Amino acid sequence: MLFKVAMIVEIPATLAPEEAQQLKAKEKAYSQQLQHEGKWRHIWRIAGKYENVSIFDVKDNTALHDILMGLPLYPFMKISIEPLCRHPSSIHEDDK
Amino acid sequence: MLFKVAMIVEIPATLAPEEAQQLKAKEKAYSQQLQHEGKWRHIWRIAGKYENVSIFDVKDNTALHDILMGLPLYPFMKISIEPLCRHPSSIHEDDK
Amino acid sequence: MLFKVAMIVEIPATLAPEEAQQLKAKEKAYSQQLQHEGKWRHIWRIAGKYENVSIFDVKDNTALHDILMGLPLYPFMKISIEPLCRHPSSIHEDDK
Amino acid sequence: MLFKVAMIVEIPATLAPEEAQQLKAKEKAYSQQLQHEGKWRHIWRIAGKYENVSIFDVKDNTALHDILMGLPLYPFMKISIEPLCRHPSSIHEDDK
Amino acid sequence: MLFKVAMIVEIPATLAPEEAQQLKAKEKAYSQQLQHEGKWRHIWRIAGKYENVSIFDVKDNTALHDILMGLPLYPFMKISIEPLCRHPSSIHEDDK
Amino acid sequence: MLFKVAMIVEIPATLAPEEAQQLKAKEKAYSQQLQHEGKWRHIWRIAGKYENVSIFDVKDNTALHDILMGLPLYPFMKISIEPLCRHPSSIHEDDK
Amino acid sequence: MLFKVAMIVEIPATLAPEEAQQLKAKEKAYSQQLQHEGKWRHIWRIAGKYENVSIFDVKDNTALHDILMGLPLYPFMKISIEPLCRHPSSIHEDDK
Amino acid sequence: MLFKVAMIVEIPATLAPEEAQQLKAKEKAYSQQLQHEGKWRHIWRIAGKYENVSIFDVKDNTALHDILMGLPLYPFMKISIEPLCRHPSSIHEDDK
Amino acid sequence: MLFKVAMIVEIPATLAPEEAQQLKAKEKAYSQQLQHEGKWRHIWRIAGKYENVSIFDVKDNTALHDILMGLPLYPFMKISIEPLCRHPSSIHEDDK
Amino acid sequence: MLFKVAMIVEIPATLAPEEAQQLKAKEKAYSQQLQHEGKWRHIWRIAGKYENVSIFDVKDNTALHDILMGLPLYPFMKISIEPLCRHPSSIHEDDK
Repeated sequence: MLFKVAMIVEIPATLAPEEAQQLKAKEKAYSQQLQHEGKWRHIWRIAGKYENVSIFDVKDNTALHDILMGLPLYPFMKISIEPLCRHPSSIHEDDK
Repeated sequence: MLFKVAMIVEIPATLAPEEAQQLKAKEKAYSQQLQHEGKWRHIWRIAGKYENVSIFDVKDNTALHDILMGLPLYPFMKISIEPLCRHPSSIHEDDK
Repeated sequence: MLFKVAMIVEIPATLAPEEAQQLKAKEKAYSQQLQHEGKWRHIWRIAGKYENVSIFDVKDNTALHDILMGLPLYPFMKISIEPLCRHPSSIHEDDK
Repeated sequence: MLFKVAMIVEIPATLAPEEAQQLKAKEKAYSQQLQHEGKWRHIWRIAGKYENVSIFDVKDNTALHDILMGLPLYPFMKISIEPLCRHPSSIHEDDK
Repeated sequence: MLFKVAMIVEIPATLAPEEAQQLKAKEKAYSQQLQHEGKWRHIWRIAGKYENVSIFDVKDNTALHDILMGLPLYPFMKISIEPLCRHPSSIHEDDK
Repeated sequence: MLFKVAMIVEIPATLAPEEAQQLKAKEKAYSQQLQHEGKWRHIWRIAGKYENVSIFDVKDNTALHDILMGLPLYPFMKISIEPLCRHPSSIHEDDK
Repeated sequence: MLFKVAMIVEIPATLAPEEAQQLKAKEKAYSQQLQHEGKWRHIWRIAGKYENVSIFDVKDNTALHDILMGLPLYPFMKISIEPLCRHPSSIHEDDK
Repeated sequence: MLFKVAMIVEIPATLAPEEAQQLKAKEKAYSQQLQHEGKWRHIWRIAGKYENVSIFDVKDNTALHDILMGLPLYPFMKISIEPLCRHPSSIHEDDK
Repeated sequence: MLFKVAMIVEIPATLAPEEAQQLKAKEKAYSQQLQHEGKWRHIWRIAGKYENVSIFDVKDNTALHDILMGLPLYPFMKISIEPLCRHPSSIHEDDK
Repeated sequence: MLFKVAMIVEIPATLAPEEAQQLKAKEKAYSQQLQHEGKWRHIWRIAGKYENVSIFDVKDNTALHDILMGLPLYPFMKISIEPLCRHPSSIHEDDK
């Protein structure tokens, strides 16, 4: 089941740079692990912004919630979610 | 070069149903042609809405403009666009 | 899997009253059928408004989409959706 | 008498973690006590967010006010309230 | 139990003037009847606008809903509602 | 001359609790003095919020400005004002 | 007593041009009469828009209401009002 | 050439009171100097707010920019600007 | 003196196609005449939208107003204006 | 390929003035270097604000992203981006 998730990251200036770097490294590893498992299907950077738009493929709402709550940068994110369906015009078997 | 495009469709009640059907059929053919050409990379339906979120892969801004202007349902759409880049955490070679 | 769905109904003045009445009767029957099936778990009226807030219990996003698209008053509704999870403080076994 | 209450929790980074934990434990106990009393009828988590949507069943506006003011996390919440009525299509005797 | 209700009236240009006049006359009679019964406690005009702000004193949410749904101009109103309580600083015995 | 004034109070966490208490006590005394003088005609609490809605009866705009500037909690308030007139449907001699 | 009033004019395409011209002529005469009486102290055009910003000098809120309700173009205006006071830095005796 | 400028002042609680007083005194002197020069044509207080609405008469956009950048309280202001023209209904020779 | 002007064009479906075509042809000629005169310095299409962003170089606010009011498509445009100055970092002699 | 980029700069009061000065000097040098390379085609100041509107001419979205991420003041900016195309009415060969 697919969800579009938009994440806006706002790391406060009060966070020590080395701590920020550690969190970003953890975030990358966490994201890539989920991409390898097929749960985080796509991730793109919004040009010019510290934001991404992602597609998740999860079992249910709770699985999505647990993944997002586990994001190392979650405390510094604004997240918006839209549940997706297969589009009747889509020719791509995967996009459902 | 990738763009996220969100399309909200609002067909007015004054449009004759058969005309609406024809437009929708043309829209589907137009979309599938562009999907086969690789320019309309993804299209998903937003659950519960007459809206989609799509990923386009085009040569430049003008190519995107021309594709969108050619949409049979364009006069009834609200469109928002965000230019995308490859995300540094992405493991998918295609998502750029 | 639960979703909160808010529906704002705006029937245009141009719709003939008897047609509006027929649609409302169909809407009621459709809603009650889904309530009996356990898919439309709750529906409340927002005081003073032609709006409702509802809880749906469906298999997945597509099931929700199909139910909402089938609403007889769908063409006259503004719909907003939030996917829900069981709350860790909830004592109600059903609210998940 | 029913009210829908949406609560968005924003615990500031300046709050000591152990204090935050204590407040959350108190919040859970407070919520469950009110659920047992039948005043806090439903509570759901919004997927991917530190937010909930709840249904309260109280005597009057003042009873609602007093319950919300007593929330241990109240100083860190944004709250929005909508008074509810029984919906004419509802088949559930309790939803009023 | 008190509620603040704001009503914005937007009578469409397509409504025949005599029909509009009849509705306004009915609205006035309806409002004054409820004022005499003590249910519509205050009504003020917002200066320069076809809007009012009112205070209702009703038994519960459903009573408020039924009163508002009965407004002759209801189909042409945008309504917003806020439940009120007695303010701890108030010296007026009635304002609760 | 009447004005509706809505006040949203947001006391910052950095204000010492005893100082906050003193300000609230001063605020209450200030409000009650103006109520006794007939200038602060009504004050209601918005249920579930640290907000009030009030009706002021003052000589002119400057008198309203001076009263609001004198509020002990003014530095922590967001204020919105709407000038009021007698409503043509009002039966209450005082509501003007 | 001074008020700033912003007026946005939106004459619908369905209004016959000659009727629109008559209304505009009446609007101009009405405005100039009030300017001569000193009640409509200033009127400026917002560059590039069919909008104005005006300063009114009236006895009270009701006088302002009656003047605005009498505007020939009132049914096609969106109006916003802000009550003004003399500014402590002002050197102009008239600006109060 | 005229501009309407709205200024909302938000002095942070972290600014020392004596420093705030000095800035306000400088602001007043700066404003009055420009009023005497005829460049700051009007300034009014918005009732109940630490805001003003002003009319500037300047040579061009750059002159307006330089004046606003020189405001002692500029770092604590939110500013919005609208270019003005003489209104065709205006009878005041100066309002252009 | 420079202004940024954003124009959103919304031609209503009720306008006859040939009339729309005539207006667009007039609009193009009008725009190109002003570009040749140096008053309409730049015009760009927003990708995917029937909108443009333009830079005007005019004598004063009134000259800008008169140009915009003369746009053949003006009745179908939403216009927003921002006065510009030379930027201190600019190396382009013309951009002032 | 052209993009309009709007940048709003908000340097926090907690940044030491000399550090702010250094950042601004770096920003100016960075901007002028890109202007000399032809990638930052235009930059204008919004009158009365610490904001600019700019036109970039870049190879693709990623080139734009990299330039913006390299802005010395980037951490203190709010950025909005619109992809541009040549306008069919434009007579300027460069504006594409």
